Amino acid sequence: MRPRTGPFWDFLAGRAKPPPAAALLGWELIAIDADAGTISVAFEAGERFTNPVGAIQGGFLAAMLDDTLGPALVATLAPDQFAPTLDLHVQFLRPARPGRLVGHGRVVRRGGGVAFLAGELLAPDGEAVAVATATARIQTVRS
Amino acid sequence: MRPRTGPFWDFLAGRAKPPPAAALLGWELIAIDADAGTISVAFEAGERFTNPVGAIQGGFLAAMLDDTLGPALVATLAPDQFAPTLDLHVQFLRPARPGRLVGHGRVVRRGGGVAFLAGELLAPDGEAVAVATATARIQTVRS
Repeated sequence: MRPRTGPFWDFLAGRAKPPPAAALLGWELIAIDADAGTISVAFEAGERFTNPVGAIQGGFLAAMLDDTLGPALVATLAPDQFAPTLDLHVQFLRPARPGRLVGHGRVVRRGGGVAFLAGELLAPDGEAVAVATATARIQTVRS
Repeated sequence: MRPRTGPFWDFLAGRAKPPPAAALLGWELIAIDADAGTISVAFEAGERFTNPVGAIQGGFLAAMLDDTLGPALVATLAPDQFAPTLDLHVQFLRPARPGRLVGHGRVVRRGGGVAFLAGELLAPDGEAVAVATATARIQTVRS
């Protein structure tokens, strides 16, 4: 893989602090392939994310999936580009208990201005607890 | 409105602690009409929910919308019923800055086993930052 620069890679290389939202979710990189547009990350789904029946609140699974799909795309961008998510659709396949959850994200298709993303979130037993698709708009920072 | 019982109403009446996920989001009831199936709640979108560009990470807006749409339905349920969310679709209309966000949720249609929900999340200026729809399955706890 060619050397990468920009805020995302500075964070991955330990040259910059993780964004607060990623830190709160216990975001941790497992593997990344920017040329393929794929990423695997882990999250620490703590008790503080639970709903009244002790499962992880679906919205926090959505937050984890957003922080899986987004980085799969960000890794493919130039340092002066960013890509706000336009929409996110999550299906909750089964309840998730507190613990370590693994997210796999991929860029399904990337055009000049729009990217289509997909991924899933797995429980420690390897079964998916939620799947998601997202659409993002690719923008270049005007300097 | 007739008196309501069950975990959700115990929480609203201060008889039970808020669920951890709701507490983390700074969930606060503004108004509820269980007969109409509508709710208004507020959230405290803190700096810890921000992404690298200082906006609230979209996933946390999704979590807030999940905790808006869900309670709109839960308020209409019998004490022995619960309603896991099957899917959630969020559109991110514009960036949200840290601060107080207000969610409006409603039950669009409720059948015997399924409910369709919708809502939006508003910035302090009253403009929507995100809108969502969700589908939930209504289940009765077997005792």
